[in-house]
Amino acid sequence: MADEGLAAETLCQVAITVKDIEKASKAWAAALDLPVPEARLTGPAEETHARYHGRPTEAQARLAFFNLGPITLELIEPVGEPSTWRDGLASGSAVHHLAWQVRDADAAAARLQAQGIPVAQTGDFRGGRYVYLDARERLGVTIELLGSRP
Amino acid sequence: MADEGLAAETLCQVAITVKDIEKASKAWAAALDLPVPEARLTGPAEETHARYHGRPTEAQARLAFFNLGPITLELIEPVGEPSTWRDGLASGSAVHHLAWQVRDADAAAARLQAQGIPVAQTGDFRGGRYVYLDARERLGVTIELLGSRP
Repeated sequence: MADEGLAAETLCQVAITVKDIEKASKAWAAALDLPVPEARLTGPAEETHARYHGRPTEAQARLAFFNLGPITLELIEPVGEPSTWRDGLASGSAVHHLAWQVRDADAAAARLQAQGIPVAQTGDFRGGRYVYLDARERLGVTIELLGSRP
Repeated sequence: MADEGLAAETLCQVAITVKDIEKASKAWAAALDLPVPEARLTGPAEETHARYHGRPTEAQARLAFFNLGPITLELIEPVGEPSTWRDGLASGSAVHHLAWQVRDADAAAARLQAQGIPVAQTGDFRGGRYVYLDARERLGVTIELLGSRP
């Protein structure tokens, strides 16, 4: 057991979609008693190669992070569309994903897809890439796999 | 900084409300590659002293836990009502709360209440007590404080 599934990887992040990242960052900073983090915009599509349900998307997001020890709390304000971030906000479900740092993103994604959990969005960022799997129906949240670039 | 807020405490749990805990436990067990945990019913009201928005409630829940290293993933199937678990399921927002193990639940709750985050539900369990604060509007999720019994 636990040699191949997500339990063998590292849960590293809880992410929440927000309408106004400055307002949300201030509220979280107050609750946590931490400094307000600076929000930063994700790169343009030519840099991130973002794909939404298989198709390239120009959508971006503004991100802010709080370090909570074993995991980070990520706030996400969607910019443009289509994206799973925009979908999350539209659905009224604030928590967007739980993220795992994985050793092999393709293998981990294939295992979840074989369980009927489809890939919803993918993209690159400085230092890595991400795969969002739409496990909302099956598990209640989107699952993010964080891996290194191939 | 971080001497008094939640960042000075221990984030220990992400919880998801589910309609069918057997089905959800099996789906999560498959994704995680862990054994299916046994669901257990919370105690009766005379044992848990559960209060919902200040009033005693008979509501219970069936709970199942996965140990994910630094934090646990909790699945919650509401039984009876009223409860924040039932509210969570009705709202369509699967993630119910982020929980912190705190040194002083009353002090931590007072700090959050002073920020405009009200207490929604409280109760006891074997070995401790919990306070749910309704931070859905302000932070996007309910905050749970786990403390020892006074």
